[in-house]
Amino acid sequence: MEDFRIALLGLGNVGTAVAELLASTQDACLARAGRRVVVDRIVVRDLTRPRAIPENLPGKKQMGTDPLEAVHDPEIDAIVELVGGENHPRTWIRESLESGKEVITANKAVLAVHGEELFNLAHEKQRGLYYEASVAAAVPVLQVMQQGIPAGPVDRLFGILNGTCNFILDQLEMHSFEEALKNAQEAGLAEADPTLDITGMDSAHKLILLARILLGHTVPVDELRVEGIENIDPLDISFGWSQDLKLKLVGILERNGRGTCMGVMPCFIPAQHRLANVRNEDNAILLEADPFGSLVLQGKGAGGKPTAGSVVADILRAARGDSSSTPPAGKETVILDPGMRPARHYLRLEVPDRPGVLARVAGALASEEVGIAALEQSENLSEVHDSVPVQILTHPVQTPQLDRALGQLDEDLRNISSPVRIRIEE
Amino acid sequence: MEDFRIALLGLGNVGTAVAELLASTQDACLARAGRRVVVDRIVVRDLTRPRAIPENLPGKKQMGTDPLEAVHDPEIDAIVELVGGENHPRTWIRESLESGKEVITANKAVLAVHGEELFNLAHEKQRGLYYEASVAAAVPVLQVMQQGIPAGPVDRLFGILNGTCNFILDQLEMHSFEEALKNAQEAGLAEADPTLDITGMDSAHKLILLARILLGHTVPVDELRVEGIENIDPLDISFGWSQDLKLKLVGILERNGRGTCMGVMPCFIPAQHRLANVRNEDNAILLEADPFGSLVLQGKGAGGKPTAGSVVADILRAARGDSSSTPPAGKETVILDPGMRPARHYLRLEVPDRPGVLARVAGALASEEVGIAALEQSENLSEVHDSVPVQILTHPVQTPQLDRALGQLDEDLRNISSPVRIRIEE
Repeated sequence: MEDFRIALLGLGNVGTAVAELLASTQDACLARAGRRVVVDRIVVRDLTRPRAIPENLPGKKQMGTDPLEAVHDPEIDAIVELVGGENHPRTWIRESLESGKEVITANKAVLAVHGEELFNLAHEKQRGLYYEASVAAAVPVLQVMQQGIPAGPVDRLFGILNGTCNFILDQLEMHSFEEALKNAQEAGLAEADPTLDITGMDSAHKLILLARILLGHTVPVDELRVEGIENIDPLDISFGWSQDLKLKLVGILERNGRGTCMGVMPCFIPAQHRLANVRNEDNAILLEADPFGSLVLQGKGAGGKPTAGSVVADILRAARGDSSSTPPAGKETVILDPGMRPARHYLRLEVPDRPGVLARVAGALASEEVGIAALEQSENLSEVHDSVPVQILTHPVQTPQLDRALGQLDEDLRNISSPVRIRIEE
Repeated sequence: MEDFRIALLGLGNVGTAVAELLASTQDACLARAGRRVVVDRIVVRDLTRPRAIPENLPGKKQMGTDPLEAVHDPEIDAIVELVGGENHPRTWIRESLESGKEVITANKAVLAVHGEELFNLAHEKQRGLYYEASVAAAVPVLQVMQQGIPAGPVDRLFGILNGTCNFILDQLEMHSFEEALKNAQEAGLAEADPTLDITGMDSAHKLILLARILLGHTVPVDELRVEGIENIDPLDISFGWSQDLKLKLVGILERNGRGTCMGVMPCFIPAQHRLANVRNEDNAILLEADPFGSLVLQGKGAGGKPTAGSVVADILRAARGDSSSTPPAGKETVILDPGMRPARHYLRLEVPDRPGVLARVAGALASEEVGIAALEQSENLSEVHDSVPVQILTHPVQTPQLDRALGQLDEDLRNISSPVRIRIEE
C-alpha cells in the first residue's frame, strides 16, 4: 500500500514529540496502519531556530514556513495541525478538507468555536477530522464515545478536564494559591498567563467538544455556567478534608426530561467518588448510561508526550481509514444551568470581626430560604486583619438561590473579599 | 447504503440484551454506522421456549436452531456468536470468516484457546473478528489498545479482570468466603459452578487476549502462574486494612530486558493505588507506556447489559467497516514468572497451638533466606480448635523462594490447612 504522506504544522513541544514517536515506533506504526507514515513537510515559524528532528524519521522532511504550501500540496494526504489559535488554523483546516486531505489537530479552541463549520465540511467532503488530543491529552475519550460505547444517549458525563487546575487543587493541600500556581508553572503545566485554565474556560472548551458528540451540536460557550478556581483557598480544601470531601474542577453534562444541564465549576465530591483520587495533572471522565452502567477513563491530561501520543494514534487511524464519526449538526437541545439541581453548598465569607455580623449573614440566607446545616466562625488570631472567615454548610438549595442571598449582603460585608461558594456533588 | 444483516447465535442474557439495545437505539445506530443494522436470523437451542424479542427490532428475525444455516446464508453479513463454549463456536467462527462474513463474539474461551487459528484466518480473509465484550465486559479496552493509544510497546498492564472475584473480595470485608460466594451467586454474578472464576482461570483467559494484542502471539495458559482466591479468608482482608493494603485478584503483564512477566494472582496493593477503589463487579485495566504515561479504564466487568453494550458497539464498528486490528502472529516472547520480581509477601498459616512450632516456621523461612518484617500469632480463644493463625509480613523475596520455604515445613504443620501466601505489589 502507498505511504501515508503527512505535513506537520508546528514543531513545538507536541510537534517534536510527534516526530520522535513516529521515528521510534516505525515498525509498530506500519503494523497497525498497514502502510508507512512519512513526514514529507514540516512547517515552522522560524527556519533559523535549531530543531531536533530525528534522523530516522521517514519522509522528505521538507522544511518551510508557509502552512498553505503544505495545505495545497497534492502529494500530502493529511495535515497535522499543532500550531494553536483560532483563525489561521480554521483556514488551514478548511482548505485541507476542501482539497481532500485528512486533518488531525490538537487544537480545542478552533473546534470549540468553528467546529460546526469544520465538522460539516468534513462530513460533506467525506474526510476525517481527528481531534483526540484536544480533549484530555492522552485519554482516548472521543474515540471511546464515538465507537467504544454503544450508540444511544449518555445520561451523564462528569469530567476533570484541566490538568493544570487539578494539579493546583492538589497543591493547595500544602501551599497557598500563589505558590501552587507557581509550582504548576515550574512543572511546565501552566502558561505564563494561566487565565484560560484557572477561569474554567479551557475546561468549558473541552466540555463543548465532548458535548458535540453526545448532543450532536456545538453549544456556544456563553450559554454555560463557567466558574474557575481563582478564589479557592487552602481553607476550603481543609474544610473538605474535615467532611470527607475532595475539591475538583469538573465539567458536568446531565440530561433530564427538560434538557441538558451543562457547565463547569469547582465541586466538592465524596472521598469515595470514582474521581476523588485523580491526582496531579491527570484528567478523568466518568460516563453513565443505562446499557453500560458507568465507565471511567483516566490518564495524563497535559504535557507534550501524552498529547503527542493521541496525535499519533489519530494519524494511524487516518492512515488506516478508520474514520472518526462526528456527524453533522442535529437538532439543538435546551441547555440548562447545572446549578438548578438542588445540592448542599459550602460557603466561605470573610466578615468583619464585629458584633451583629453573623446575624446579618444568617438573615440574608434565611430570606432566600437557604437552610444552614453547619457553621463555623474561627477566632481572630491575627493582629493585622480585623476580619474572620466564616464557613457554612447549607442544606440542599439551588445555586442561584444562594447567589441571590449573597447579593443581598450589604457592601461592608461584601467588600472584604468575594464569597466562595462551592456545590457538593454527591 | 445497504442494510447490515446480522444473525444472532444465542438468546440468553446477553443475546436478549443485544436485541433490546438494537431495537431501542435504532436511530443512534443508523447515525453511527451510516446504515441500518437488521437482525435477519436468530438461532436458539430450544424453539419452544418463550422469547421476549422486541417487536420493533428491525429485520426478518427468522428463528432457527441450526447455527450453520445462518453461517452459510449468503444474505447474512455478520455472525454474532453469544453461545459460549470452545469447539462449536470455533467451527462457526471459522466457517463464517471463510464465507466472507464479519464475526462478533463475546466468547473469551474460544479465542484464548483457538485464537491464533481464527485471527490468522480473519487476517487472510480480510474480515473483522471483533471480541470487545469478551474482556472486561463494558470496558472498551481492546479498542483502546488497538487504536486509542499510540503504536509501540506497552511496558506494563495491571488489571482487575474478573468481576465475580472482585465482588467476592469486597464482600469478604463483612462475610465469610462461603457467604460471599453465595451473595455473588444470588446477584447473578457467579455461576453455579464458580471454579473458572475463583481459580483465576477466567482472568488468565482475558489476560491472554490482552497480551495477544500487546505481544503479537497467544501465550498458552499453562505457561502462566495462575492463582485464585479460593483460600482467601476475611482474616487476610483485615490484615490488609491494618497495613493500608487492599486485596485484589490481578492479571499482570510487565516487560523487562529478558522477556515478559505474565500471570494472575491475588495481590495486596496500596490503598492509594489507582485500582484500590475498584469495587463490586467493576473491572479496571491500568496501562503504562512511555508515550502516554499511564491510562486507567474502569467499568462493569460482568452482567448481560454491560456485555451487550460492547457487542453492539462492535456490531456498529463492523457495519461501519472500522476493522479491528489484531495482526497475525509475530515472533514469540519469553514468558517469565511475575513471582520472580522480589516483593514483600504476606503469609498466613494455621499452626498447632504447641511449644516450638513458631521456631520451626521461622527456621524454614530462614533456610531460604526469607526475612521476617512482622509476625503476629493470635491467642487461641477457641475451645474447639487446637490451632492458631500466624500472620507474617516478609521482607522482599521472590515468590518461589517462599514456596520452597513453605515446602520444607513438615507434615504436621502443613496438614492443618494450606498456607496462604500473597504478594504485595507496591
